[in-house]
Amino acid sequence: MIFGSDNWSGAAPEISEALMRHSTGLAVAYGDSDLDKSIENRFNEVFETDCAVFFVGTGTAANSLAIAATMKPGGVVFCHNEAHVAASEGSAPEFLSGGGRLALVGGNHCKIDPELLDKTAGEYPQEFNHLGQATMVTMTQATEAGTVYSLDEISALSEIAKKYKIPLHMDGARFANALVKLGCTPAEMTWKRGVDMVSFGATKNGCWCAEALVVFNRDLLSHFQFIRKRSGHLFSKTRFISAQLEAYLEDDLWLKLARHSNAMGAELEKTLRSSNHVRPAWPSDSNQVFFIADKTKAQKWLDKGARFHPFPTPKGMETDITENEQVYRLVASFVTQQNDIDALSEIINS
Amino acid sequence: MIFGSDNWSGAAPEISEALMRHSTGLAVAYGDSDLDKSIENRFNEVFETDCAVFFVGTGTAANSLAIAATMKPGGVVFCHNEAHVAASEGSAPEFLSGGGRLALVGGNHCKIDPELLDKTAGEYPQEFNHLGQATMVTMTQATEAGTVYSLDEISALSEIAKKYKIPLHMDGARFANALVKLGCTPAEMTWKRGVDMVSFGATKNGCWCAEALVVFNRDLLSHFQFIRKRSGHLFSKTRFISAQLEAYLEDDLWLKLARHSNAMGAELEKTLRSSNHVRPAWPSDSNQVFFIADKTKAQKWLDKGARFHPFPTPKGMETDITENEQVYRLVASFVTQQNDIDALSEIINS
Amino acid sequence: MIFGSDNWSGAAPEISEALMRHSTGLAVAYGDSDLDKSIENRFNEVFETDCAVFFVGTGTAANSLAIAATMKPGGVVFCHNEAHVAASEGSAPEFLSGGGRLALVGGNHCKIDPELLDKTAGEYPQEFNHLGQATMVTMTQATEAGTVYSLDEISALSEIAKKYKIPLHMDGARFANALVKLGCTPAEMTWKRGVDMVSFGATKNGCWCAEALVVFNRDLLSHFQFIRKRSGHLFSKTRFISAQLEAYLEDDLWLKLARHSNAMGAELEKTLRSSNHVRPAWPSDSNQVFFIADKTKAQKWLDKGARFHPFPTPKGMETDITENEQVYRLVASFVTQQNDIDALSEIINS
Amino acid sequence: MIFGSDNWSGAAPEISEALMRHSTGLAVAYGDSDLDKSIENRFNEVFETDCAVFFVGTGTAANSLAIAATMKPGGVVFCHNEAHVAASEGSAPEFLSGGGRLALVGGNHCKIDPELLDKTAGEYPQEFNHLGQATMVTMTQATEAGTVYSLDEISALSEIAKKYKIPLHMDGARFANALVKLGCTPAEMTWKRGVDMVSFGATKNGCWCAEALVVFNRDLLSHFQFIRKRSGHLFSKTRFISAQLEAYLEDDLWLKLARHSNAMGAELEKTLRSSNHVRPAWPSDSNQVFFIADKTKAQKWLDKGARFHPFPTPKGMETDITENEQVYRLVASFVTQQNDIDALSEIINS
Repeated sequence: MIFGSDNWSGAAPEISEALMRHSTGLAVAYGDSDLDKSIENRFNEVFETDCAVFFVGTGTAANSLAIAATMKPGGVVFCHNEAHVAASEGSAPEFLSGGGRLALVGGNHCKIDPELLDKTAGEYPQEFNHLGQATMVTMTQATEAGTVYSLDEISALSEIAKKYKIPLHMDGARFANALVKLGCTPAEMTWKRGVDMVSFGATKNGCWCAEALVVFNRDLLSHFQFIRKRSGHLFSKTRFISAQLEAYLEDDLWLKLARHSNAMGAELEKTLRSSNHVRPAWPSDSNQVFFIADKTKAQKWLDKGARFHPFPTPKGMETDITENEQVYRLVASFVTQQNDIDALSEIINS
Repeated sequence: MIFGSDNWSGAAPEISEALMRHSTGLAVAYGDSDLDKSIENRFNEVFETDCAVFFVGTGTAANSLAIAATMKPGGVVFCHNEAHVAASEGSAPEFLSGGGRLALVGGNHCKIDPELLDKTAGEYPQEFNHLGQATMVTMTQATEAGTVYSLDEISALSEIAKKYKIPLHMDGARFANALVKLGCTPAEMTWKRGVDMVSFGATKNGCWCAEALVVFNRDLLSHFQFIRKRSGHLFSKTRFISAQLEAYLEDDLWLKLARHSNAMGAELEKTLRSSNHVRPAWPSDSNQVFFIADKTKAQKWLDKGARFHPFPTPKGMETDITENEQVYRLVASFVTQQNDIDALSEIINS
Repeated sequence: MIFGSDNWSGAAPEISEALMRHSTGLAVAYGDSDLDKSIENRFNEVFETDCAVFFVGTGTAANSLAIAATMKPGGVVFCHNEAHVAASEGSAPEFLSGGGRLALVGGNHCKIDPELLDKTAGEYPQEFNHLGQATMVTMTQATEAGTVYSLDEISALSEIAKKYKIPLHMDGARFANALVKLGCTPAEMTWKRGVDMVSFGATKNGCWCAEALVVFNRDLLSHFQFIRKRSGHLFSKTRFISAQLEAYLEDDLWLKLARHSNAMGAELEKTLRSSNHVRPAWPSDSNQVFFIADKTKAQKWLDKGARFHPFPTPKGMETDITENEQVYRLVASFVTQQNDIDALSEIINS
Repeated sequence: MIFGSDNWSGAAPEISEALMRHSTGLAVAYGDSDLDKSIENRFNEVFETDCAVFFVGTGTAANSLAIAATMKPGGVVFCHNEAHVAASEGSAPEFLSGGGRLALVGGNHCKIDPELLDKTAGEYPQEFNHLGQATMVTMTQATEAGTVYSLDEISALSEIAKKYKIPLHMDGARFANALVKLGCTPAEMTWKRGVDMVSFGATKNGCWCAEALVVFNRDLLSHFQFIRKRSGHLFSKTRFISAQLEAYLEDDLWLKLARHSNAMGAELEKTLRSSNHVRPAWPSDSNQVFFIADKTKAQKWLDKGARFHPFPTPKGMETDITENEQVYRLVASFVTQQNDIDALSEIINS
């Protein structure tokens, strides 16, 4: 009955075994080992295109350094007002980009509204230095609200990015969860729909610590080696990331893990919807489930050992919940089992 | 015969096993798990004092964030002109500290000369904004030249730091190698000699990716949680660092590994000194060995499969080597074996 | 009929004369001349309290460096979403503060709504590094919408700043215009109401280039000398700012100039309200006047030589104006004369 | 007998008169007025080529923003170890360039030694992210030591800059003093010798506050408008700079002022050389004169009202001066008169 976050899990056994397997022997450091190169190539296969791949250790690093790499002086990045970059990364996007700005765009359930994006981006005329210059759109797939952009919704954002001649970045901290939900290929969910780069997250879905910034247009990140190094994000023993990703991508492990956590998310949602003690906040598309509950009741459940977190009330939902209520987030992961859900159900409904 | 760097090694088996052992189950993320807390306490025991411990993933992050955490506007950090922060961290100290400056201080074989430090620090009068204000001294133990500061040499630097009312930081990327060389305790090599904080490196000595910033005066880094987060260096599954450090510190594994690599360094040095084809650059105190060789010969050895790197000629040694010669660095690690040294010897002497 | 901005004016004759008067002779540079010191003392008299005074050249520098001086890692500054720092300073607050973030707060007519401020500031719990830490509230007096906070409205904001233990900064680019509107003393409009520091703007009100950051609690800006210098904002011949401010503050010149521009603003408003071709956007308290007009008509007036600018539709007013309409800003300055207003009136009403 | 610095002077009468002349009337702000444009064109004439001109308020801003505009991630700027950017700008080059690094290069009397520059720049191989990437060479003309690079010496540096494919910047805080010394045209001292951009300083030579960044290759600074704005260095009433420069460049005022201060420098040097109480440090080419004197004697002269400053002992001169001696700098300016020199002479020789 622990649903605090999918990053409360450890690592899948295959991941630890890969680390054990690659722990012996000597290999060139700083990303130039044979293993590192082979995993980079593996990404080319997975995404069915030539792409540059940069390993980093945290999703915040992947997102912030992507923003840094495309930043311009007085630059402005467009994101949803509840996006991870805006709400959970401690101003790393601003700091690591040397003072860039996030311009927040609304939209239901953490999805950027294309019309609002167009309107907001339109407020930054080229060459007008008093306000700033547009540099990037970043979207999250799956979103912080557990929702998943459809392929057409991705296209809608990429068209606006193109209109303003700025790249479209996808924060894929839960890339696999979105992918199995849509049932498409990585290529279909990204560059075929106009996405220019992806923070490909593997940590939340079974790795210890493995994120990859995948860039479909190599020119975009020409200085990235320096950007990563000067922020302390170049590991010496990069093998430890490559080894994890080797196991992660082998035999579709990543998709299996994501299917499991999504299925557990769906079970969790079904169970909660059947209870009279909570009410759904909005439908989930992935492994994150959101419910509204009475604060006093929720505290009791927490006291009994359940683990989940309050979630800030999204803009536009202020009137949907009373003062005694709160939106809560519950996250299933690759280790969640039916009996965790049953135990939670018993606590809630007893 | 691979002596490229100690970070070309993978991980000690005990480290990978600890990762396997802690991979199951759920635990609070972002450094608040029981394991994280227990390892922080373990550091208090190891250093025999109350200290704050912050895990990060790279030595560059540990050093640069220590510099950032004590930075002031117009701040200047004093370091050796061949220190890792100055020569190998891609301007991360400057970038992550928001534009701080490194003031380079000379000294033989990568050890800061106390008199030169005093002279240099004295050039920054308080309140004189045109030049900048002194904020920190950072020393490397063991140094990039394989030498190790004696306890009295550490005291000499800390006295000058105290004179200018700035903290003394120790870059301990090879902390264990220095420690077993001196045969003292961690406390004796640090706070008992006036060191205020340490980048405690474990990666080069058997971990995959585990560094800890250890601070003896908690007030010094009051905002560190925010500094680490805003630079993308807070891991979600911090357990993966804690697990490594658990094994690292257990049963003196770290000291055993360091003793091994130092012993291999000594063997390597002995072997090289007995050869007519190279000549020693300076005596080594640890696992890094430096020799001068003819460039053409060295290239032949590399062509035969040996792995080692040229090292920039230290200031003051320009006249000691001819134009056809070069200083080379060879590094032993916890995986180095006598037969590696023998193989190298055969290549060099054949 | 030029109402583009109050910074389209040059300098009052008294200002230029002061520059001429102080142009001869030699004086210590970088703020340490007798004249510099005497003007700093003059500010102590004007504000009836001990205060630190730092001269800079632009309002953007004054605001951004105030933000920088109180910034913390992961820091967040609260301001109105249409504030100058957010809408017209090209991300200087973020850049000069090393990556700080502005959190935008709503409120009618550019005044921060105290309840919304309380709610927003409350979203940043202390020690929660994922979102950031509150560092400052900055308000604009007079606002970008020409409105003026009443003394009680200032108190309301300072109480919330105190609640969150953060300083309250006042962007006083049009300080004098607000002051003469309220008819109170500088002390009454600032520290007596809990304001901790002021960007005291003189440029828009008759100087060439003279801004002063006035701080009532000297501890707040202990490193400011370094912060100003490292951003290139310390002038060598600071006399040229002091000389301007000497004339500005002498014989209440600054209040006379502000009274004139406010009176011209009132005349302008009266004239526009009497026209059938425009409609008022909201009532003005100072020298900036806002009207809604048909875009096609407005273009005709511009073609005839009138000068004024469109103003972004404030949040909450979207439904008040039709698609063919636009909010326009007209600014009176110390050089505006009745015949300018008459000429504009003729263009609009002909 | 005030020789503290050339920035202790106020403004030439022609400068103040120009400010008075342009103080009336209204003009577009932020650099778009007719006067601003005409002065930019005037620079094209002065430099006999198409160039972009950006006005700023301080030499530190001009230098630092030039460095910022050409900065790359992990970027390194080469300058003399006693250059103004390294010794007197409070880390503004690092801060305003977002954490760039200065690599110090030696050379006698503040002139960069071309061989040392070549050697130092050669230590930064392209694509090697551990050390950083070369981004610019910046030289000072006239230097901080009062010396002036000959045209061939400028060519020597520009050839090395070209070799490493990085721009050559000239810090021209005392551009006019160097120019009249060499007796050549602005074009001959800059782009005809491979200089890519110039910080054209007018403040020290008779203006209140007027510096211009002049760029011969417009592509180099494509984002400069944003870089200047985001650092708070875009003035609203840019007319106040343009007006100064109008007078400065009219009828060769700038050359006349520089000839005067150089002539006074030569007189000062002659007078000092004739004294038994001081000895020359090195020959001066411009308005800055350097002498070695006994510290006790110097203090007496200062007590009698003379004004000059100690100068840090240049590298390589440590053995030339005894412990009781000190190098002192004396600066003549456009307001220095023969009787100032006579008064100093009397103090020294009495």
